[in-house]
Amino acid sequence: MRIDELETPIGVVDLDRLSANIDRLQSYLDTHDIDNRPHIKTHRIPAIAHMQLQAGAVGITCQTLSEAEVMCSAGITDIFLPYNLLSKAKLKRLMLLSRRARISVTADSAATVAGYADAASQEGSPLPVLIEMDGGCERCGVTTPEGVRQLARQIDSASHLHFGGLMVYPSNPESNAFMAESKMLLAQDGLDVERTSGGSSFCMWQAHEFTEMSEHRAGMYVYGDRNLVDASVMTLDDCSYFVLATVVSRPTEGRIVLDSGSKALAADSARQSPGHGLIVEYPESEIFKLSEEHGHVDVSRCDRKPEIGERVTVLVNHCCVSNNLFPRIIGHRKGEVELEWPILAKGW
Amino acid sequence: MRIDELETPIGVVDLDRLSANIDRLQSYLDTHDIDNRPHIKTHRIPAIAHMQLQAGAVGITCQTLSEAEVMCSAGITDIFLPYNLLSKAKLKRLMLLSRRARISVTADSAATVAGYADAASQEGSPLPVLIEMDGGCERCGVTTPEGVRQLARQIDSASHLHFGGLMVYPSNPESNAFMAESKMLLAQDGLDVERTSGGSSFCMWQAHEFTEMSEHRAGMYVYGDRNLVDASVMTLDDCSYFVLATVVSRPTEGRIVLDSGSKALAADSARQSPGHGLIVEYPESEIFKLSEEHGHVDVSRCDRKPEIGERVTVLVNHCCVSNNLFPRIIGHRKGEVELEWPILAKGW
Repeated sequence: MRIDELETPIGVVDLDRLSANIDRLQSYLDTHDIDNRPHIKTHRIPAIAHMQLQAGAVGITCQTLSEAEVMCSAGITDIFLPYNLLSKAKLKRLMLLSRRARISVTADSAATVAGYADAASQEGSPLPVLIEMDGGCERCGVTTPEGVRQLARQIDSASHLHFGGLMVYPSNPESNAFMAESKMLLAQDGLDVERTSGGSSFCMWQAHEFTEMSEHRAGMYVYGDRNLVDASVMTLDDCSYFVLATVVSRPTEGRIVLDSGSKALAADSARQSPGHGLIVEYPESEIFKLSEEHGHVDVSRCDRKPEIGERVTVLVNHCCVSNNLFPRIIGHRKGEVELEWPILAKGW
Repeated sequence: MRIDELETPIGVVDLDRLSANIDRLQSYLDTHDIDNRPHIKTHRIPAIAHMQLQAGAVGITCQTLSEAEVMCSAGITDIFLPYNLLSKAKLKRLMLLSRRARISVTADSAATVAGYADAASQEGSPLPVLIEMDGGCERCGVTTPEGVRQLARQIDSASHLHFGGLMVYPSNPESNAFMAESKMLLAQDGLDVERTSGGSSFCMWQAHEFTEMSEHRAGMYVYGDRNLVDASVMTLDDCSYFVLATVVSRPTEGRIVLDSGSKALAADSARQSPGHGLIVEYPESEIFKLSEEHGHVDVSRCDRKPEIGERVTVLVNHCCVSNNLFPRIIGHRKGEVELEWPILAKGW
């Protein structure tokens, strides 16, 4: 069966490109002696996580407990969960999970560390807790080296916690300097920083410049999307994930409507390009608006206009959130359908 | 069990408000003798569709074949699918469905009508096809009354199709005038327009002003969201759907991070208000950025700052796309959990 015969909208993955993407990053990180700990939030599929591990990843990264639970159930034993887990219910699940796999987590506050310490107090082996630092991007994270020192002391002094190192997202020169400064402070306390975790697909080919980082977490590199192509991190020919769509209307000469809206492409805007994705066959077009089940496209600049019923291929702005909207994904090689993967690791 | 005990993020529905919203619109439309045909794309839950029918709706509206198949399997027998269905696979499913329920569809092109005519040619009873018109909002739809006449003739002359009327989204003065003009043209051809379908929750309380419309399709009115509150169509106290979130970080005095990002709230921006939703307990705050599993919130204007671990209630920008991100939803009355509804009618 060819992917051209699949009902649209549907997400498809080119398995050859997927493998090439996995191998390319692994090879680069191996060359620079950086541990690869890919983020599975992009694909949420155990089979792809296993491909990443087989290629040489030291473990995986998950963003939610549910993702980690599914991956653990799929036989994956080294999982980093860089998230502040707080409630009694989530901490209980975390402890159950940590008995089945090597789980490490992060904290950026005394409250989070206190919760881990309390939850782990009945456990046999200590829970590794890394400190999340904010390298200036206004996400989670401790904002000063002194703050890192205070939190590291709290973790180190908790009898059932283990100070696991430092973590930042994304890696950049500021976060690298922050990490260096924090390490020096921690050395004064006699605290060894065994693991320093950086991340992002956008900076993946610069990972070797962030000399303070011992491991790199990238997610989107397996699929690629418009943001990564815009940023010249991947080429269009590297991208493995696309949404197949059908032209369902052409109300005017210069405007068509696709059967793929915000419930398939996701409404996230691109960092640089206008519109809601790139139509590969019509690069001059612009998906200027999304309704839930319709993509509204300006084709006035296209020499040939797409016909009603014609199928097109959309490179989405952000692969992680589009992939998340599908219950399953189709794997193919050169357009020939090879498999169907349920997207299992969803939810919180 | 109280909703305060549920793990976050999670979507919850206040069942008393839900019922009140269903009754309020039904009562208004009854008063003005307008048929109510609610759009279930908002909730995608058969039980809520049954509540709408029980209140007096003449049938329901679905946006995808999968939604219609699930609703049909849940015993709903009158379904409007205002969508250009084109591929052989989808037309085959449509025909199977039309043997089990009263299905009506729309077309805005000769190609779509030809597909219906071909697919229906083996069926015993004719398929009702309404013509979608564009009232000026640049969505799907025929753009001129003369175009409507041509398409109506094509539908009327197809032996297994039935000209079912006219449809527009959203209802507005322009689309109302367009409908009046089209009706006059069709009358010259001796074509009766038995059903004129308008829609949108934004204009629902003006439905009686659109005198050409015999039925109204609204979806979001059951839940409400920030867009509808901004537009003064519903009040905050009318809204039944909220996402419960937890503060997982407070990196600086003026900034907190929620455990609800674009995979729970959806990244759709609001039509008027800035940010990605309203935090009910902190109306002065602004969710200024979403990552996938984090909501980044400016709380600098709040007198009291939310604590780490504190739970908050988010009114999302667009209820349909947030609801779509959850596998199930919790129904409660005054905070006491009453039921859990799987969101069954997903996909295409």
